[in-house]
Amino acid sequence: MPENENHRRSTVSVIGLGQMGSRLARAFLATGHRTTVWNRSGAKADALVAQGAVRAASAEAAIAASPLVVVCLPDYATVRELLDPLAEGLRDRVLVNLTSGTPEEASQTSEWAAANGADYLDGAAMSGTRLVGRPEALFVFSGSPHAFTTHREVLASLGKAMHLGADPALASVYDTALFGLAWGALAGFYHAVALVGAAGVEPSAFAAVATGHMPFVTSLMADHARQIEGARFPDDDGTVEVHAAAMGHLVEAGRSQGIGTEVPELISALLERAAVGGHGADGIASVIETITKGKQHV
Amino acid sequence: MPENENHRRSTVSVIGLGQMGSRLARAFLATGHRTTVWNRSGAKADALVAQGAVRAASAEAAIAASPLVVVCLPDYATVRELLDPLAEGLRDRVLVNLTSGTPEEASQTSEWAAANGADYLDGAAMSGTRLVGRPEALFVFSGSPHAFTTHREVLASLGKAMHLGADPALASVYDTALFGLAWGALAGFYHAVALVGAAGVEPSAFAAVATGHMPFVTSLMADHARQIEGARFPDDDGTVEVHAAAMGHLVEAGRSQGIGTEVPELISALLERAAVGGHGADGIASVIETITKGKQHV
Repeated sequence: MPENENHRRSTVSVIGLGQMGSRLARAFLATGHRTTVWNRSGAKADALVAQGAVRAASAEAAIAASPLVVVCLPDYATVRELLDPLAEGLRDRVLVNLTSGTPEEASQTSEWAAANGADYLDGAAMSGTRLVGRPEALFVFSGSPHAFTTHREVLASLGKAMHLGADPALASVYDTALFGLAWGALAGFYHAVALVGAAGVEPSAFAAVATGHMPFVTSLMADHARQIEGARFPDDDGTVEVHAAAMGHLVEAGRSQGIGTEVPELISALLERAAVGGHGADGIASVIETITKGKQHV
Repeated sequence: MPENENHRRSTVSVIGLGQMGSRLARAFLATGHRTTVWNRSGAKADALVAQGAVRAASAEAAIAASPLVVVCLPDYATVRELLDPLAEGLRDRVLVNLTSGTPEEASQTSEWAAANGADYLDGAAMSGTRLVGRPEALFVFSGSPHAFTTHREVLASLGKAMHLGADPALASVYDTALFGLAWGALAGFYHAVALVGAAGVEPSAFAAVATGHMPFVTSLMADHARQIEGARFPDDDGTVEVHAAAMGHLVEAGRSQGIGTEVPELISALLERAAVGGHGADGIASVIETITKGKQHV
């Protein structure tokens, strides 16, 4: 369709200009990429147009405008409701879907895109909206390796863009898992702040030390992943028994200070279960087995 | 006592040459500090003497040998049992105690040291034994600011040496809290590894992405500490309600994969309690109140 070819004049189109979508468009503009935008309520595009974005008259026109179409909507049902009638226009385009959803939704949408001749990448923004466009913002993508390679430089406008693999479900799987990881760390942090607070230490004073300590904790993750892969748990970082005893002291410390002790209690339970499971003298990464075999212990 | 003055020929003495004590002595030697060592069973000193350490014939001689006496023993009872008869020799020395113990034990030992004319620093090694002597190994100290200032350069041989304040209990308080923080992150990591493993992702592949994500999570801690100090919780990183819903999905994902769900269930409970407490539309750092007010909710 020559008319479409004529309209294909942007590098990237962004459909859905909520808090995240607007930041995506701004990041593309900031790195000098001609960017077409569309949102159901037109007003949200105004600020972006003032910053140099091209306003599309319709979602169809936005799709026609660029080889790379980035969609960020409230949920997958909204994505399909919007795109189903426009599927023909997606042929030979790359559809990048940064809508939050489940691995199953990602797989289904990938199949739908393939059936309509579009290349598909599912994606997830791992660092919230505030850092979009900065190198420390992590964006993970999965699906068509060719689509990622082709548009890698444009996607890198958003932050650190990683391709996880050809399975389109992977971005959602990682998204969920990294969310849980972040919350484990935050729950540990909030508990620690409560504990030192009971001893008169200000949260910021503790945070200054804690943030300096986290790179060490993070380095353990890489080591322990290797141990888990090999199912061998050396006691380089202490044994399950020693950690269980120390965690018991932490529970007691929380109790004596009158703060909530759910966080150390849970970890105590995991460590004790690992010890009962025969890992008392093993390294702490052996705790993984109390989680992977979770159901057997319930 | 001129005899003692004559013996005071090392920069630092290390008493207790277990796994940690040996590493401490080695780190002092590696940075060119003349180091005297003593251990109850003499054999443990042999390797250090081969590396240039001076062997003390007794704990008393080790104390006499240096202005800075570093002690690392199994527990505080052992410290006092050893040092009580030698208290007189500690006059005008700086005693640095890296033995693991409670804040109360640190305070008591500090008082005992002061009563015997010694300056006291309590300390804790936050990064295990493996990294001792490397800049990423964190050592926290509390107690006499003068003692820390005087010996800062020698203590920096061990790693990143931080002075937390004049209250000798602080090192132990931070030690306990940082241990809980580390375990929150590790529990989150192990759960995440179990979850992605159920989707066929190798632990090391996940760890590569996770370790790249942790600096962002760590940056949230500094932000949230400031929010907690101000008791104001903006929703920059999402609201309690939105996170509670997402954590609910994580619990479901774990269940459907047949892995243990204790970690996300605990966090769900904290988030739901925060929402019930009126923080549903607030930022996630408001969860701290469900911990500081822990006992009121039990």
